Amino acid sequence: MKRITLLLVAVATLAGVVFFSAPVSGHADQETGPVFVTKIPNGFRDWRLVSVAHEAGNLNDIRAVLGNDTAIKAYREGKLPFPDGAIVARLAWSYIPSEENNKVFGREQSFVAGSPVNVQFMVKDSKKYAATGGWGFAQFTGGKPVNEAAAGACFSCHEPAKAHDFVFTSTRPDLKISHPTV
Amino acid sequence: MKRITLLLVAVATLAGVVFFSAPVSGHADQETGPVFVTKIPNGFRDWRLVSVAHEAGNLNDIRAVLGNDTAIKAYREGKLPFPDGAIVARLAWSYIPSEENNKVFGREQSFVAGSPVNVQFMVKDSKKYAATGGWGFAQFTGGKPVNEAAAGACFSCHEPAKAHDFVFTSTRPDLKISHPTV
Repeated sequence: MKRITLLLVAVATLAGVVFFSAPVSGHADQETGPVFVTKIPNGFRDWRLVSVAHEAGNLNDIRAVLGNDTAIKAYREGKLPFPDGAIVARLAWSYIPSEENNKVFGREQSFVAGSPVNVQFMVKDSKKYAATGGWGFAQFTGGKPVNEAAAGACFSCHEPAKAHDFVFTSTRPDLKISHPTV
Repeated sequence: MKRITLLLVAVATLAGVVFFSAPVSGHADQETGPVFVTKIPNGFRDWRLVSVAHEAGNLNDIRAVLGNDTAIKAYREGKLPFPDGAIVARLAWSYIPSEENNKVFGREQSFVAGSPVNVQFMVKDSKKYAATGGWGFAQFTGGKPVNEAAAGACFSCHEPAKAHDFVFTSTRPDLKISHPTV
């Protein structure tokens, strides 16, 4: 029986996720792909660190980017595009001053991670997510997926990073995943 | 044969490390402890993430704190003091604006990790480092240990955090290692 597949048109921002789906003519023998990533990858909080960042302005968060084993291997080998199975996680916390640290430093200079804001994922599956550069995008707030109700659009904001497989963090030659002895 | 032991007087800052050693009367059967941590713990770059921070001012870095398995277990269980064998690593990178990210956001708001600055470690051994709260301190710049030549002092700056075992990052009840679904 011929099945109707969905054309995934993912339009998302770095700050949020909105996914629109539109039915197109289907193909026999083709599974209907998930519209977007709906489950938090198991054990992501144990993944290895790629890099860190601070977003000022309205976001006002401090963040870490982690990668599963497949992603970290690709990062370290400097191989792009990322292979299928790679998952990149972006964890954000509120950006707050640390009174405790400032006392030690003797000046107002220390900012630390406060309460968790949200977590985002990019999941590489070049077939399933072919319409969005091979990446499925997702955002979870309080452990729950954010989808159509979100304000943003992931893929459109990641498109400028097409030259490095739509991933911003530590894929540029001058900002590779690095640290002494790594 | 009676051996002379060293009294480790570690005076160090969050930003640097200076260790002074002074000979004191020794004890039979007591090993001479190392003056300070001289080797980078194997595989630290693969350790799990505790938290992230930004130090403005003169340091002007962005940093991540990682923990070995023993440290992460203690963090997650909320058990202080940390047990012997726990190691906490602090990696710092230069704090630089990301023109690439700012273009996407449409404003100057994004700061990322640039080149590596240094890495610091706290190694828990309640006997070996009894004189400094049970912690051995170290800093490595470019993969090389920084010792007497450094400008700072570790332990004295960590003393205000005595209530949470001299560790600042994510040991306070309101700033525990955390994220949704963790």
